[in-house]
Amino acid sequence: MIMKSAIKEHIPARQECISNSRHISDALYVLNGKWKFPLISTLRESSLRFNEILKLVEGITPKVLAKELRELEINGLIERKVISTTPVSVVYESTSYSDTLKNVLYELAQWGKQHREKVRHEIRADQMQVDD
Amino acid sequence: MIMKSAIKEHIPARQECISNSRHISDALYVLNGKWKFPLISTLRESSLRFNEILKLVEGITPKVLAKELRELEINGLIERKVISTTPVSVVYESTSYSDTLKNVLYELAQWGKQHREKVRHEIRADQMQVDD
Repeated sequence: MIMKSAIKEHIPARQECISNSRHISDALYVLNGKWKFPLISTLRESSLRFNEILKLVEGITPKVLAKELRELEINGLIERKVISTTPVSVVYESTSYSDTLKNVLYELAQWGKQHREKVRHEIRADQMQVDD
Repeated sequence: MIMKSAIKEHIPARQECISNSRHISDALYVLNGKWKFPLISTLRESSLRFNEILKLVEGITPKVLAKELRELEINGLIERKVISTTPVSVVYESTSYSDTLKNVLYELAQWGKQHREKVRHEIRADQMQVDD
């Protein structure tokens, strides 16, 4: 009986998996697309102007960047700050709420790193087979 | 001097932020779209047939599901298994490589959960202001 309940602990009930998948969908509703995560990650390192972000986040177009920044602002993850210089300048910075994404961003970066390594090894192994 | 280097440790160099953002982009290259994470999460709980996945992952169409499953299979995250019953049946299951996504999925689900709570509180606060 003890063993049975010990096993049971490791098998989540169907209800639990459904909610896990739902929580993930909830997260992706806000963090959808290929740009949200890289943008938050970039802005968490330093506040940047629109054109600076455009240069740092490779491949994004001005139109898409404007749309993505607006969506991130609506969801409280970044802030648009107008600085009263002459002429006025605008910078984008991450909010304290974006701190809640710290672990997600870390784990995602770690996974991307190891996945690139894995693919690199596989390509190398394939080439060695061709060379043989 | 000691303080300065202590501070420095907490400020990553520009090069480091660029690579973090790149690692994240590498991850999203494989895990793109709104379905990959929920699908992996669902299949990590149990092996399922095509129609079972269709029912569990709300909103996905058969055409999109077929495409997403194929992409996940190519990237070694799920496996398509043909079982020699009569008639033959096909189940999809997560691979051991999908274990590497365990932390990402956990953190993403945690974030989705707390974000839903946050939004719920904000809506409640707004309604209370209207009622006043």
